[in-house]
Amino acid sequence: MTLAVRYTAARTLDTGPAKTSAPGPGEVELAPAYVGICGTDLHIFHGDMDARVSRPAVLGHEMSGRVVRVGPGVEEWQPGDAVTVMPLRWDGTCPACRSGHRYICQHLDFIGIDSPGAMQQRWTVPAATLVRLPQTIPLDRAALVEPTAVAVHDVGRAGVRAGEKVVVVGGGPVGVLIALVARAAGADVRIVEPSAHRRQLAKELDLTAWDPATDDVPKLVGQWTGDAGADVAFEVSGAAAGMATAVDVLGVRGRLCLVAIHPKPREVNLHRFFWRELTLVGARLYHLPDFEKAVALIEDGTVPAERLISKVVPLTEAPSAFEALEGGGDVMKILVDCGNNTDDAQGAAV
Amino acid sequence: MTLAVRYTAARTLDTGPAKTSAPGPGEVELAPAYVGICGTDLHIFHGDMDARVSRPAVLGHEMSGRVVRVGPGVEEWQPGDAVTVMPLRWDGTCPACRSGHRYICQHLDFIGIDSPGAMQQRWTVPAATLVRLPQTIPLDRAALVEPTAVAVHDVGRAGVRAGEKVVVVGGGPVGVLIALVARAAGADVRIVEPSAHRRQLAKELDLTAWDPATDDVPKLVGQWTGDAGADVAFEVSGAAAGMATAVDVLGVRGRLCLVAIHPKPREVNLHRFFWRELTLVGARLYHLPDFEKAVALIEDGTVPAERLISKVVPLTEAPSAFEALEGGGDVMKILVDCGNNTDDAQGAAV
Repeated sequence: MTLAVRYTAARTLDTGPAKTSAPGPGEVELAPAYVGICGTDLHIFHGDMDARVSRPAVLGHEMSGRVVRVGPGVEEWQPGDAVTVMPLRWDGTCPACRSGHRYICQHLDFIGIDSPGAMQQRWTVPAATLVRLPQTIPLDRAALVEPTAVAVHDVGRAGVRAGEKVVVVGGGPVGVLIALVARAAGADVRIVEPSAHRRQLAKELDLTAWDPATDDVPKLVGQWTGDAGADVAFEVSGAAAGMATAVDVLGVRGRLCLVAIHPKPREVNLHRFFWRELTLVGARLYHLPDFEKAVALIEDGTVPAERLISKVVPLTEAPSAFEALEGGGDVMKILVDCGNNTDDAQGAAV
Repeated sequence: MTLAVRYTAARTLDTGPAKTSAPGPGEVELAPAYVGICGTDLHIFHGDMDARVSRPAVLGHEMSGRVVRVGPGVEEWQPGDAVTVMPLRWDGTCPACRSGHRYICQHLDFIGIDSPGAMQQRWTVPAATLVRLPQTIPLDRAALVEPTAVAVHDVGRAGVRAGEKVVVVGGGPVGVLIALVARAAGADVRIVEPSAHRRQLAKELDLTAWDPATDDVPKLVGQWTGDAGADVAFEVSGAAAGMATAVDVLGVRGRLCLVAIHPKPREVNLHRFFWRELTLVGARLYHLPDFEKAVALIEDGTVPAERLISKVVPLTEAPSAFEALEGGGDVMKILVDCGNNTDDAQGAAV
């Protein structure tokens, strides 16, 4: 019998037995090693996405693991291969797919939201979703490839160039990853984050972080940029005040990359978009080159993924980890250990 | 004595004597022929811009006219030359200027708002603001060069390409000009406009216009685009509902060009920006190439400027024209005739 973390109702998770079946044609059965808990998983846990999620739902889409079995016709993969998953299934026929943007297919199946996710001991996915992991990345760090791919995509959407001044509003895992990826692109980066714990982590990564409660952020940006304003802002907070800050800090022709989910319409200072000819760019998900770059950035240490892992909990304790995360506070990334690491020779234990 | 239209207080315009003085070094004295009444002039008239406008203020920045006198050092211009004015003075030293965006200088002097405008019988401006008009454009039509330059700039900011499907929300003068310029770029264009009068004018220009009160615009866009959504939307209405429509009609990776002024923050469906990876681009003013292209588009008839002129009123009747425009309704562009056309051999009378 294999176990899974299951969402059954608002604020209710349990662990219980999960169905397994032999992988079908083109499919691969994985043994997930580590699965990160993402902000979207928390949205589901809060009950905010009940209209979209079929219950009981197995959560999780930030994962690392190994191939256990391959289905008919799968030739590229072998049992034991270390992998992560780009958790997207597109229809290939909608207007978005036909225009070359399959990853934001108008009928996208996001695996882990729209279909069962990785927080279980066995997980069957299409072989086409697998991304190979080099032996040099321990599997716990590899669970950070997916959010790093998000950050790579965001920095690409914003078109960050060397020498540009970048403000990241929101210093959680994705915000810090964006800051690291933008810095790797040659940008000068500042983070705006209310949590002292998260600012401290940023500092340890040699990133400057301001506290919006006590720092006059627009004034600091003015001093930093010689009254020009920032070239790029990333809105990663999801908060009304964060969106306002991201607009306020930008200089003429500045670009605001919208990363966070704002479920309800927000008041936006459109006059400033007009006045300074700002650009707002929505960024969602990623495509395969983003994953490949994320793997490379973690492998070469540009993204020290291990520094973002606050805690690793066994599968059976995932429900209480979600409850603890509800309180927010002093954590970055929590990983769920699916109990599949006995054969892991890479020293993945934290 | 020369006359000027002067804004003295909210909803109060008069005509009265204006100071004239010999043009200084690098300056040119013009005899304005026609001056268009712009939405911004109406904002001033309503009192919305009293914090910015020093009263009494001479309004007007959409103009045509002739050179009367040139100041010391001006060699490019001769009395009698037909001109329009790009009404911008930048400081050349601010961060925006230094980054190459002088037309949105952080300390911009917009002539006609921040300093005296064209609704007077003599007007002295820097020679550097003049744009030459070909003899083939009657001076009444030439008063439409400035708003056409706005439209050229907007279409450029949105990056409209041949074959793209474009929705223009708001079918006033600037909206119709955007539609004409986008069509000239090869786009397939639809206008959304509540005024039957303005829809009728669009129809006469072979443009399709929908009524947001009775047409289901998102549904029509779905049918028109095969469920893809539009490539580009222009928000030219300034209304909350117009902004919402512009967001709703866009397909994956669609671009929304923000042209209208929204003085107060607006609720914006940011989730859709995220979900469809939309882009919002603010567009303000223009630079010299936009004016040159506007002149060419009017000269070759691509923009039939004469069709947008609803009415021409003498300078002394400008105050009542403003009052009539307050009611909105069945007009497009109203021109003020400054009484300087006795020597106009081009048949400018309407």
